[in-house]
Amino acid sequence: MTLRVTVWNENVHEQNGSPASMATDYPEGMHGAIAAGLRRLLPDAEVRTATLQEPEHGLTAEVLDATDVLLWWGHIAHEQVDDAIVDRVQERVLGGMGLLVLHSGHFSKIFKRLMGTTCSLKWRNEGERELVWTVAPRHEIVDGIPNPIVVPAQEMYGEFFDIPEPDELVFISSFTGGEVFRSGVTYTRGAGRVFYFSPGDQDYPVYQQDEIQRVLANGVRWAAPRAGRSLPEVSNPQRDWFVAG
Amino acid sequence: MTLRVTVWNENVHEQNGSPASMATDYPEGMHGAIAAGLRRLLPDAEVRTATLQEPEHGLTAEVLDATDVLLWWGHIAHEQVDDAIVDRVQERVLGGMGLLVLHSGHFSKIFKRLMGTTCSLKWRNEGERELVWTVAPRHEIVDGIPNPIVVPAQEMYGEFFDIPEPDELVFISSFTGGEVFRSGVTYTRGAGRVFYFSPGDQDYPVYQQDEIQRVLANGVRWAAPRAGRSLPEVSNPQRDWFVAG
Amino acid sequence: MTLRVTVWNENVHEQNGSPASMATDYPEGMHGAIAAGLRRLLPDAEVRTATLQEPEHGLTAEVLDATDVLLWWGHIAHEQVDDAIVDRVQERVLGGMGLLVLHSGHFSKIFKRLMGTTCSLKWRNEGERELVWTVAPRHEIVDGIPNPIVVPAQEMYGEFFDIPEPDELVFISSFTGGEVFRSGVTYTRGAGRVFYFSPGDQDYPVYQQDEIQRVLANGVRWAAPRAGRSLPEVSNPQRDWFVAG
Amino acid sequence: MTLRVTVWNENVHEQNGSPASMATDYPEGMHGAIAAGLRRLLPDAEVRTATLQEPEHGLTAEVLDATDVLLWWGHIAHEQVDDAIVDRVQERVLGGMGLLVLHSGHFSKIFKRLMGTTCSLKWRNEGERELVWTVAPRHEIVDGIPNPIVVPAQEMYGEFFDIPEPDELVFISSFTGGEVFRSGVTYTRGAGRVFYFSPGDQDYPVYQQDEIQRVLANGVRWAAPRAGRSLPEVSNPQRDWFVAG
Repeated sequence: MTLRVTVWNENVHEQNGSPASMATDYPEGMHGAIAAGLRRLLPDAEVRTATLQEPEHGLTAEVLDATDVLLWWGHIAHEQVDDAIVDRVQERVLGGMGLLVLHSGHFSKIFKRLMGTTCSLKWRNEGERELVWTVAPRHEIVDGIPNPIVVPAQEMYGEFFDIPEPDELVFISSFTGGEVFRSGVTYTRGAGRVFYFSPGDQDYPVYQQDEIQRVLANGVRWAAPRAGRSLPEVSNPQRDWFVAG
Repeated sequence: MTLRVTVWNENVHEQNGSPASMATDYPEGMHGAIAAGLRRLLPDAEVRTATLQEPEHGLTAEVLDATDVLLWWGHIAHEQVDDAIVDRVQERVLGGMGLLVLHSGHFSKIFKRLMGTTCSLKWRNEGERELVWTVAPRHEIVDGIPNPIVVPAQEMYGEFFDIPEPDELVFISSFTGGEVFRSGVTYTRGAGRVFYFSPGDQDYPVYQQDEIQRVLANGVRWAAPRAGRSLPEVSNPQRDWFVAG
Repeated sequence: MTLRVTVWNENVHEQNGSPASMATDYPEGMHGAIAAGLRRLLPDAEVRTATLQEPEHGLTAEVLDATDVLLWWGHIAHEQVDDAIVDRVQERVLGGMGLLVLHSGHFSKIFKRLMGTTCSLKWRNEGERELVWTVAPRHEIVDGIPNPIVVPAQEMYGEFFDIPEPDELVFISSFTGGEVFRSGVTYTRGAGRVFYFSPGDQDYPVYQQDEIQRVLANGVRWAAPRAGRSLPEVSNPQRDWFVAG
Repeated sequence: MTLRVTVWNENVHEQNGSPASMATDYPEGMHGAIAAGLRRLLPDAEVRTATLQEPEHGLTAEVLDATDVLLWWGHIAHEQVDDAIVDRVQERVLGGMGLLVLHSGHFSKIFKRLMGTTCSLKWRNEGERELVWTVAPRHEIVDGIPNPIVVPAQEMYGEFFDIPEPDELVFISSFTGGEVFRSGVTYTRGAGRVFYFSPGDQDYPVYQQDEIQRVLANGVRWAAPRAGRSLPEVSNPQRDWFVAG
């Protein structure tokens, strides 16, 4: 069965041409780089992109019906995302669609909606070296991933990261300045799987890095829905319905 | 330090006089019975009540400032709760206020907001016997609680209960019909503790039962905030701020 | 890659002819029935059996080297299992071999070794109906499994079950008498996955039931090791070994 | 009720006079320093010490009967600890006694027994700066603890730390070399609470540091047993014993 992936990006840094490095780091935009990495590593997948600027942000009911796993990159335009679209994405996740939330997407409406917390954190943008350490060596997401991943220059994200206790803690990062961050965490919400992964930023070519692309590809495979997606619903069964039924 | 508790009830069954048994089961309303139980078992606490019908539903900023732990009972009027009040309560919980969500409160706006899921479940109202089994014997919430608690007649709540994997699973209930339910679950959200406890219904005098009152009193103590409540906030520290600071 | 499965049984009820129903319920022994179910549902797997009575209990280094997932059934002969074999099995699990522990195997040396607790529980053998409810609908182990599974007659296992907090709680059972039990729980230990599943007993033909066989087949697939099995080992790296290496 | 604490130390570095810094860093031994810190911060507690060299390693049944929380420091003499004493300590923990395992105690028999894993890790002893970051700000163990704790010079302990997924992850450390470590983790085993805390080493005066002493004092309070300690035991109840009983 073909795996259908949609990479969503607010696509504002790209359109603004800010930072200027975007032109060389991400000539096709961050969504373009992420999608290219997934196509390379998941040759059986159909990978499309969608952006804030499209009608319904490119996330129509039809697109989501045809999406097994959605990736979400947002930063400076979280507030421009229509609440009705957030409702729609949340419902699909609870019904079984996988979701990967990337980097500054920690403050996206959809992530805060699914977490219930502020999702706040510490940050500092000085191009520090990030080391991404595996703490769950048996997890599908770390298949073929070196330990640690070395990201030469990156924005620092530090604790306290205000998220619910993760179902699984997969990666912990450290930065040159000594801060640490739970940089790869998983959750199940309803019938859907959610993976938050922090490495990746508009100022650095992190999504061009092979190991980072592999984490995303593994994450997509891990988050893919099982057959029979459906939203959990309230029901009022008779006694012994399970015997009769 | 005095523990300050607010018992919130939508107070609609009480005002409607429906069911009729309310008049004998809960002459002071369910909030009245719950508050009386807490006063009996937590003599050092200040226990007040608040209801939907009061201005700002009785949950003004002043009331919440003076509330260490909030209990929430709602059923048929969830949609009448003002979103601005829900925002306020959520912010207080993330900042450290304890929250106990009771029975049909699983569908309250505040609980769905903190969980991120549908919070749906199975139900059947035939007065079945509920057995509430302890599966976390070391937990503060089960101090002095018999195992199982026998609730002679109760509405059935059954799995699948669409909640995030709990931080701690404290109670599992079974019902005459054979269904099971994760009837006592805990979460931390931000700096606040949340305890959902399902036994208790407008049709049965469950909140008059000594063991049930004890669970609520233990839950209040467990959820009480530590000193220094504050909402986790984003920050942008200098390198080595922790050495200088 | 062929999945290599070994079904281990102490094989004492079978040899004793006790209970007498064993002859009709399990003409090939419980291990025979379990292995037949796995062969039916995992046609790509190589399934062998091993028993207590064989040299080294049938669990030589060679057999374990060629085992991806081991299933363990024991009851009245736990103490006859050689500690050196338990050491060997534990080391393989920590190195990545999957382990399914069945029913009364909760008191086996290997399970207690991996859990660190007494693994005690309540029990009563009166042929009660067991209902096995799914509480993790997204889990691989419940693929294609009805909710609930109805086991017409079974020994009751009840809480408190003295195990560590599971990584994932997959099934909760209820019994005619009203007791509940965490009947399907998962753990990761080292690089290995462990699944404990309680339905199944020498007195009842539970392992002949299609749904039960499906749970075991799903469990085997879930517990199968990833490439590169190895025991986590202490190391003393140089500074920046990860950059040089 | 007086809290009764026993600080256990293998006391071999102390007796060997190796390292030489021990004489100035820990004139009363590490157990002496730890006990002094607890006496200072828990004035209501009775704190005693016990060492490997005493009869029954100072952990007689009488001592353990009178111990609410045991702290364990060991390093080069793990193998000299008698298995019968380890059995005894494990039984007490499962019955409700609290246990704090310190630093190189990760390789002690008692910790490996309770975890079921190898408990291996990375290490490097070059006096690196350790930063101990709080990731569970609501936890009792972090009350009054600065974030981060700065340990000027310490042995590096790094991931992968082969432990079961913790019940609660309280602290993550980073080191000058960039490694990270889950340096404060909690577990419940049976009726007992276990806290592993890694900062502290024979080569550095870490246990003289106020913040480290506070973590230990908080940990002792958190791990203290509730009333009615007893080992979980198998039982064979009649139907409806809970109604009659």
